[in-house]
Amino acid sequence: LAPFSAMAQAVDPLPSWNDGKAKQSIIKFVEDVTREGSPDFVPKEQRIATFDNDGTLWIEQPMYVQMVFAIDRLRELLPMHPEWRDQQPFKAALDGDFKTLLKDGQGSRNLQTIVGVTHAGMTPEEFEQIVKNWLATAKHPRFHRPYTELVYQPMLEVLAYFRANGFKTFIVSGGGIEFVRAFADQTYGVPTDQVIGSSIVTKFERRDGLPRLFRFPDVNFVDDGPGKPVGIEQHVGRRPIAAFGNSDGDLQMLQWTTESGGRRLGVIVHHTDAVREYAYDKDSLVGHLDLALEAAKLDSWTVVDMKTDWKVIFPFEMKGEASPKP
Amino acid sequence: LAPFSAMAQAVDPLPSWNDGKAKQSIIKFVEDVTREGSPDFVPKEQRIATFDNDGTLWIEQPMYVQMVFAIDRLRELLPMHPEWRDQQPFKAALDGDFKTLLKDGQGSRNLQTIVGVTHAGMTPEEFEQIVKNWLATAKHPRFHRPYTELVYQPMLEVLAYFRANGFKTFIVSGGGIEFVRAFADQTYGVPTDQVIGSSIVTKFERRDGLPRLFRFPDVNFVDDGPGKPVGIEQHVGRRPIAAFGNSDGDLQMLQWTTESGGRRLGVIVHHTDAVREYAYDKDSLVGHLDLALEAAKLDSWTVVDMKTDWKVIFPFEMKGEASPKP
Ligand SMILES: [Ca+2]
Ligand SMILES: [Ca+2]
Repeated sequence: LAPFSAMAQAVDPLPSWNDGKAKQSIIKFVEDVTREGSPDFVPKEQRIATFDNDGTLWIEQPMYVQMVFAIDRLRELLPMHPEWRDQQPFKAALDGDFKTLLKDGQGSRNLQTIVGVTHAGMTPEEFEQIVKNWLATAKHPRFHRPYTELVYQPMLEVLAYFRANGFKTFIVSGGGIEFVRAFADQTYGVPTDQVIGSSIVTKFERRDGLPRLFRFPDVNFVDDGPGKPVGIEQHVGRRPIAAFGNSDGDLQMLQWTTESGGRRLGVIVHHTDAVREYAYDKDSLVGHLDLALEAAKLDSWTVVDMKTDWKVIFPFEMKGEASPKP
Repeated sequence: LAPFSAMAQAVDPLPSWNDGKAKQSIIKFVEDVTREGSPDFVPKEQRIATFDNDGTLWIEQPMYVQMVFAIDRLRELLPMHPEWRDQQPFKAALDGDFKTLLKDGQGSRNLQTIVGVTHAGMTPEEFEQIVKNWLATAKHPRFHRPYTELVYQPMLEVLAYFRANGFKTFIVSGGGIEFVRAFADQTYGVPTDQVIGSSIVTKFERRDGLPRLFRFPDVNFVDDGPGKPVGIEQHVGRRPIAAFGNSDGDLQMLQWTTESGGRRLGVIVHHTDAVREYAYDKDSLVGHLDLALEAAKLDSWTVVDMKTDWKVIFPFEMKGEASPKP
């Protein structure tokens, strides 16, 4: 037995994770549900794992990436809409005044208004190209790198580890489904049909003799909070057996996943590293984490302490490149 | 070269298809888009093929299978709702009076009313079990076999052939997404997350201390006609390069698939065999085919003549079991 056991240890599926409760709980779960004859064995077609995106797979501070994209789009369109300079919520967005923008009770309506003028009025293919062009040039204000480089190396390893063990991995984002699809395949190895997210109304029409889809400014689906289980059912048609999130928007997804009998895994990524990334939870407007951290105790979810559990945060650290000071 | 060519012919990917234009056009398409260096080569992640279900993958006469299921459910629930005996559209459904039920301009509202009382009021897991139980016992009135045996053998071969060539195969049904999911994996080898269909509203709630989803009678999405391209974009996030259908409900899906430049395949299954199955098109309420048959000429779609193109219709014929006379 010894040589096999040694071999298993030699191939560490999560090399960027420090040894500890979080890493152990993830590996133990995968081993339990994939070992033939195990009482917790789950057949392949039921191995569904869902991952929130912002703050779980990539950076979301100081502002959601898609929000930065939307504001850059506003600036680009501003010459045609000079009235936005004095009109809310555009003024707050253009001024980077996120407190006003995300004010309690108005945040989601404000975001919808901005999404309406920046994300609609084109085909899905055109929107995809706009997002790709932006991602190719935009840089994070602190790290001065493209956002697609600011993904979490330890979570890339989790995605690959789950897939290597027969899981289908789905992204379940509060962000826009077509926004995430523009980079999910290349960045996470998740194909477009395994991305779930919020959406605006899209309609079929013929224009200039050709069939096309066209994006309208009305909200079609909000894939956040109680919307996440609904979005998963719509797209996957099965309850996941593992779910990863980082904020209260993931509460119902993790509850629905784990409170269903059988061996389940719920994971909360807790941002605790102000030096290498950011430290925030219940006092943050972005990635607000409060109820879900309480629920983690009740439901025995794994809470990842980024500062102590992760050897590196971003892939570029693997090449010995240092993070800028906060 | 000769031995290879002989070998390729020896392994016929579509053995239940008679040689002819339809079979040749399907094989030529797959070869063109998968051959490295071909001007029509399509990378794997873009190899998306979509298939209508009723009348394309399985039988839909004398009545859509899901409609038969709904009427059987009505009968089961009738003791609690004796008023349905004299109340439309329930009376027409219970009497099997499909002319009244599907009357022009009222068909879709009638179906929605019936779906509302037969498909809602339970969790998705409970509904799946109800459908599975029904499919295990219900038999087709003419063929006296379970509906899952009344799938088209030649189309099962097409599904397998496309998948063997790196395609992801999606079902895009006007029928209920959760109804089709209950048998798609076992019957077609299509996993639940690759089934797209119409849906009713589903909400997250906590009941008796546990999280669950619950099905409500309101329509959420109609995956038919212009809804099919929209449903595909929502679920897949890409335009298919091949699409199969059999009625006017597939018109926009086939147009959107094929009128987009590049090598594309559109296929219409035309029911022309009254002896082995049914013969119907523009005069049928079920599987109404008129505009899409016209469009097939304009857009050079492949029209399958079931009578001449298919050696067998159903898998049981492969075992030498005959069909009952019409
Ligand atoms: Ca998040
Ligand atoms: Ca059909």
